[in-house]
Amino acid sequence: MNHSYEQLSRRYTELGHFQHVISMMQWDESVNMPAGGAASRAAALSTLSGCRHEIKTQAQIADEIKACKELSLTQWQRRNLELIEKEYIKSTILPVSLVQRMTAAALACKQQWRVSRAQNDWASLKPILEESFNLIKEAAERQSDHFQCSSYDVLLDEYMPGVNQAIIDPLFAELESQLPERVSAIMAHQNGGSVQPLKGTFEVDRQKKLSEEVMSSLGFDFNHGRLDETLHPFCGGVPEDVRVTTRYNDQDVFFSLMAVCHETGHALYEQGLPESWRFQPVGQALGMAVHESQSLFVEMQLCRSLPFYQWCCPIIEKHIGAQPGLTAENIFKLNTLVKPSLIRITADEVTYPLHVILRYQIEKKLFSGEMTVHDLPAYWNEMMHAYLGLKTEGNDADGVMQDVHWPSGAFGYFPAYTLGRLIAAQLFEVMERVMPDALSRVAQGEFQPIMLWLRDQVHQYGSRLSMNELVMQATGSTLSTKPFLNHLQSRYLG
Amino acid sequence: MNHSYEQLSRRYTELGHFQHVISMMQWDESVNMPAGGAASRAAALSTLSGCRHEIKTQAQIADEIKACKELSLTQWQRRNLELIEKEYIKSTILPVSLVQRMTAAALACKQQWRVSRAQNDWASLKPILEESFNLIKEAAERQSDHFQCSSYDVLLDEYMPGVNQAIIDPLFAELESQLPERVSAIMAHQNGGSVQPLKGTFEVDRQKKLSEEVMSSLGFDFNHGRLDETLHPFCGGVPEDVRVTTRYNDQDVFFSLMAVCHETGHALYEQGLPESWRFQPVGQALGMAVHESQSLFVEMQLCRSLPFYQWCCPIIEKHIGAQPGLTAENIFKLNTLVKPSLIRITADEVTYPLHVILRYQIEKKLFSGEMTVHDLPAYWNEMMHAYLGLKTEGNDADGVMQDVHWPSGAFGYFPAYTLGRLIAAQLFEVMERVMPDALSRVAQGEFQPIMLWLRDQVHQYGSRLSMNELVMQATGSTLSTKPFLNHLQSRYLG
Repeated sequence: MNHSYEQLSRRYTELGHFQHVISMMQWDESVNMPAGGAASRAAALSTLSGCRHEIKTQAQIADEIKACKELSLTQWQRRNLELIEKEYIKSTILPVSLVQRMTAAALACKQQWRVSRAQNDWASLKPILEESFNLIKEAAERQSDHFQCSSYDVLLDEYMPGVNQAIIDPLFAELESQLPERVSAIMAHQNGGSVQPLKGTFEVDRQKKLSEEVMSSLGFDFNHGRLDETLHPFCGGVPEDVRVTTRYNDQDVFFSLMAVCHETGHALYEQGLPESWRFQPVGQALGMAVHESQSLFVEMQLCRSLPFYQWCCPIIEKHIGAQPGLTAENIFKLNTLVKPSLIRITADEVTYPLHVILRYQIEKKLFSGEMTVHDLPAYWNEMMHAYLGLKTEGNDADGVMQDVHWPSGAFGYFPAYTLGRLIAAQLFEVMERVMPDALSRVAQGEFQPIMLWLRDQVHQYGSRLSMNELVMQATGSTLSTKPFLNHLQSRYLG
Repeated sequence: MNHSYEQLSRRYTELGHFQHVISMMQWDESVNMPAGGAASRAAALSTLSGCRHEIKTQAQIADEIKACKELSLTQWQRRNLELIEKEYIKSTILPVSLVQRMTAAALACKQQWRVSRAQNDWASLKPILEESFNLIKEAAERQSDHFQCSSYDVLLDEYMPGVNQAIIDPLFAELESQLPERVSAIMAHQNGGSVQPLKGTFEVDRQKKLSEEVMSSLGFDFNHGRLDETLHPFCGGVPEDVRVTTRYNDQDVFFSLMAVCHETGHALYEQGLPESWRFQPVGQALGMAVHESQSLFVEMQLCRSLPFYQWCCPIIEKHIGAQPGLTAENIFKLNTLVKPSLIRITADEVTYPLHVILRYQIEKKLFSGEMTVHDLPAYWNEMMHAYLGLKTEGNDADGVMQDVHWPSGAFGYFPAYTLGRLIAAQLFEVMERVMPDALSRVAQGEFQPIMLWLRDQVHQYGSRLSMNELVMQATGSTLSTKPFLNHLQSRYLG
């Protein structure tokens, strides 16, 4: 093995160790840290991020990359080298002063957002969001020259390597044209059925034990991870020690249980990443669209299916006691109710893509210059009405200000949710073809064959393939809306 | 402000940030980490420790220190500079290869100790402990040339800056000559009284709430810290976010409560360190003897006093329910029972110093060459009999192998427990003189005046003064055994 490649690889192992610690500190901040520890923690993390940046941008990396290009490498190594080069360029292409201004502006904007959203006061957020957006746009434009793509494509690639508007546009156009009508049809169809919610107060301890049992059954390895409580659920940590978090609602068991199933999908991906490429870029998860495909596969395809509740209802009963509503049919109905609403994160799977498409349209227009931050509330209101028949005029808190993404500087992230949903449906369709009894196994609580299939088809590849290559290899076709639309048809109108 | 001093001080702030993260990761390892995360965590921490070492040993530090010596500095700055210089010398004086061999040997020894102790098998530990000890001795000898003191003094100074055998010898000699007789006298005296233990099973949740209430009353700031569970209780974290841990025994409320009081003493010291010197050496706690003085002041002087239980018994009752034994007099007797035993960590305050003196005698002899690792079990047995009338022949698990300190490489640490106890007694005696109603306030749950006094006399100084200077300034005399022996007289024979 060549010296240059070893050097590069060692450096990335070191960066991986920094990432380990930073992830754990972020988890700790959400789960444990008392408020008074915040300033000290922020200072410590800033020093660590600075050290990480220094390692990432050492000048000799450029020479090492150049030397490595002359070597015979395996396909994994070659891909790793490509990813290292891309990361090196992204880390060095921007002036440090611009990165610092951008980070500071996004932090200020996120802080203002908390206040502005609580007070439904768009005017107080607008100038600060404009400032942050302008810096992000400037940074993206500088990179777009080098990568020879549009500035918005630079940002899409940041969260979903290899994904651009040319890939997204046709997919979203189909969804946009079909979903509003489907929503109406499904609502009309569902109008007939009656649903009985569970009643009572459900102790957090019992809900936690229920969650842990479901996670274990799905395949989560508690020797390499844990479940804790936070305000905003997430899946963090490192592959050897995955930290899943959730929030309990003592009036609603499914509020937490469905979120836990979702995060478990993320966690299984992390726990299944290739151990021999740990810390190397090629060993990491393949961007947010594929990550979401794994959480949505588990949540939407498996854990909101009738067979899942056939298995799960007796387990729920064991933990929280008997309930007249605790039948598989009723719980399935309860967890697949479709109804347009203002809020993305609680939207059902049928209306959800429209929330994402709205944000995608806006991001495109913001980066092309067709629209400014100033125009956001009016456009939001107009499109929510067009897509879902809802108005947000005078209610920006539940409109343009509902999400933390833009205020925290994340433009180009939203499409990952819906691309992930499409990938999940396409993977599921193929899996059912090769494993026709998959759902009847789910009804028996046998998730292992499904999880092993995901491990084989997705997890073990890390970032070895591009998203397109992965989807093509696993499903035999490019990404399409059809499996998702078919799924809606059979689940909701079948 | 001079550039060199600013440089040095910035570097130490950076080191403090590394320390923040390392402390939190160690806390996480004890409290949260699943077993499967261990290897990855160890690798990450090793990278961080390496970075910290690199920062600590940068060559320009020597020049900066030299330049700073020419400056007019405040007393705090001057002391900070002295401590930085000492740390720089200690970090650079040893060859990296020796440090690595020493670290590896201690790690192997600690791992072997877990097995050997569980199997009461001294023979399997001996050669590995010998190897580790020889490296530690070699390192101490190399440093002793530079610091012009004995090798054992080098190690004492490591844990208790400024403390050496000349300070310890006369104090321990007095205790050694007086305590065995006191133990007999106290046991004879206590023989008359009968004690009623609490009965029942006490839920961990209730014990935790009880602990938190007591901690808050003692002055612990939960906006800057938390309480969690671990196998081996400790006080970790950082001053802005102190992480206290404990272990619950559902048959014994005081098993945890007394440990929590002890750790709260440590925590109050950390929370009271001077904020304006955070991260600088002069802003840190003044070594382990003073740290123990704070935990033992709270545990032994306050929380094992009759007035404490007059306040605390109704609070205990509120959390765990009524008990016939829950009277201040009975609980005071229960928690001040004196009885020689083999195990240091559960020893009462009267026999405890003899456990420490035994270890101190051994350490002195090991480093002077008067004794070898081979001789340990026989000497231990002989001295336990002389001091406490107990035998450890054939029971090395409860003899020389009971503590993790030596197997993990910590020689020179033990004296801190007893020096800390002497300091606690001397501080308490003076505090009662200036605040004669202190204990009657304790009976009312008014701890604040006492804690403010500790803050004024001890906490706020960080490492500004030496241990001798601190004791002299706070109590008007050098450290003595008298206050402690007087305390034993009045608590146990009065």
